[in-house]
Amino acid sequence: MAEVKTYNVAIVGATGAVGQKILQILEDKDFPIRELKLLSSKRSAGITIPFKDKTITVEEAVPDSFAGVDIALFSAGGSVSEKLAPEAVKHGAVVIDNTSAYRMDENVPLVVPEVNKSDISRHQGIIANPNCSTIQMVAALKPIKDKYGLNRVIVSTYQAVSGAGNEANNELAEQSQQHLNKEVMTASLLPVKGDKKHYPIAFNALPQIDMFQDNGYTFEEMKMINETKKIMHTPDLSVAATCVRLPFFTSHAESIYLEVEDEGLTVADLWNVLGDAEGIILEDDPQTQTYPTPLSAANKEAVFVGRVRKDLDNDKGFHMWVVSDNLMKGAALNTVQIAQALIENEKL
Amino acid sequence: MAEVKTYNVAIVGATGAVGQKILQILEDKDFPIRELKLLSSKRSAGITIPFKDKTITVEEAVPDSFAGVDIALFSAGGSVSEKLAPEAVKHGAVVIDNTSAYRMDENVPLVVPEVNKSDISRHQGIIANPNCSTIQMVAALKPIKDKYGLNRVIVSTYQAVSGAGNEANNELAEQSQQHLNKEVMTASLLPVKGDKKHYPIAFNALPQIDMFQDNGYTFEEMKMINETKKIMHTPDLSVAATCVRLPFFTSHAESIYLEVEDEGLTVADLWNVLGDAEGIILEDDPQTQTYPTPLSAANKEAVFVGRVRKDLDNDKGFHMWVVSDNLMKGAALNTVQIAQALIENEKL
Repeated sequence: MAEVKTYNVAIVGATGAVGQKILQILEDKDFPIRELKLLSSKRSAGITIPFKDKTITVEEAVPDSFAGVDIALFSAGGSVSEKLAPEAVKHGAVVIDNTSAYRMDENVPLVVPEVNKSDISRHQGIIANPNCSTIQMVAALKPIKDKYGLNRVIVSTYQAVSGAGNEANNELAEQSQQHLNKEVMTASLLPVKGDKKHYPIAFNALPQIDMFQDNGYTFEEMKMINETKKIMHTPDLSVAATCVRLPFFTSHAESIYLEVEDEGLTVADLWNVLGDAEGIILEDDPQTQTYPTPLSAANKEAVFVGRVRKDLDNDKGFHMWVVSDNLMKGAALNTVQIAQALIENEKL
Repeated sequence: MAEVKTYNVAIVGATGAVGQKILQILEDKDFPIRELKLLSSKRSAGITIPFKDKTITVEEAVPDSFAGVDIALFSAGGSVSEKLAPEAVKHGAVVIDNTSAYRMDENVPLVVPEVNKSDISRHQGIIANPNCSTIQMVAALKPIKDKYGLNRVIVSTYQAVSGAGNEANNELAEQSQQHLNKEVMTASLLPVKGDKKHYPIAFNALPQIDMFQDNGYTFEEMKMINETKKIMHTPDLSVAATCVRLPFFTSHAESIYLEVEDEGLTVADLWNVLGDAEGIILEDDPQTQTYPTPLSAANKEAVFVGRVRKDLDNDKGFHMWVVSDNLMKGAALNTVQIAQALIENEKL
């Protein structure tokens, strides 16, 4: 029997929504861990967290935390990654970063393993995990692009509040109860924690995720546009996005219009390519009202696709509805899958 | 002082969500009513409803109910309109029908007064009120089309449950409380009352509104596509729609991509034309996080437009976010506005 190589793993942001999911997935997948270090801000240090048959005490993340660490999974916000990821790399760790800090850095691979696993090999210490809404979209687009070409993408998103962290889940629950009690809803977090105004999300829809940029798009929309081109190696692909926060806890859904290069394709052609694709589950049968929803996709690993239709005016145009758990494939699972691919490729 | 002409008005479906809104608007706008008849199914007959300083008893709608009626506002479902609207016309009434029964009938004008008021004059007894999600979209598109031309529309909707009636509001409230109580949610109505399967709408998104058609689109999506072309007199316009039901009570929101004919337009050009348009209120300032939401538009008359952006790849492409109260402009208000236009045009 071959010896299983094991690794020292650190999770930065271990007490957050994504950090907790990463822990669960590392345990479920029996990731080959020798030693696991749980790191957080000073505020959360000292908390104990169960992992397998042990209890691990969370430590404050400081530069020396990374001594001896092989793989550091960062999910504690962009400023923490900017400060500490280079320190982890100096200590010899490979960083897989779940924030937007390094995603568009040309020296940093931005990876969805099903889509561009080979990009991992050119890492220089940091590999970036894409934005949640981008991951599920490229997972569904890539097999179509590879077989039939892709000219254009227009996406409107339906995004869960958990993308804004555990606090946002609490805000949605509290506001929902207030509204059901016929009380005034109090808003102090969404749409964006650091922004000037806050609006209720319960029984509402907020067409703002992350801060507005000078061009009138939000940062979330620009992430989807720019990251999609980088991950699929399609700098000239037309991509447009409108990102909307909605009152559900888990999973992002996306209404995607796409134009392929080939002519004369049918819905069955797209079903075939999506049905064979890694990480995709087709749930698409109008006859039986079969389509994915945020609730049906919650806590699952796959990217679910339904409502595939041919555009009624454009022979090259198709519409589809793509749903995935934003904390699983959209964040924690993809992070762990990058780590697994790193190990497989013996790039550690 | 000129004598104000008054009319005998009947409301069919007076106890429903839209019927109740029609009553409120007729009272608020001091509509010139001589006698008001409230009609319903046998089940709701006998209920009394206050109107101004009177109390009116709801009667069962039968063919003879329409004797002496000048204007009959129908909002009791397609089968009731199919059965009774011709009877009302036989009795000399003009019917304004809020169901889909006659919308695509070439002898029936389909009217949003700001968009195609002049179509009213060719009515033969029945005028149709468009689908809620169509009304707010064409109200925003028409002024743009008139000034700059329009080649293409792709819309993804975010629709309130009240579009499925008062029962759907109750279902959302009940399921929301169940979920907050950590109970299993019971679904017996949505996505579509008469369809085979029902899914929870609370903390979820359902990509089905109305029944699926043979082409894989839902009837709601086909309504948006076909009605838009009819109302704007643009049979060759490319229109695509994805319609999604969401867990909020009031207002539909729409993420709309449009392509104009003219080149070189700016966001300011669209702001100017929308700012001058009848029935439209621009709420669009990223700097101050100003954009409409379902909650902010509730119980208001206007169609609100925000998040106007130029497409980053296509010089003729723009994106915008359009929100309106689906029971007001999307249904009851537009119905009353058609009646007002009828009176103004002396077509009664």
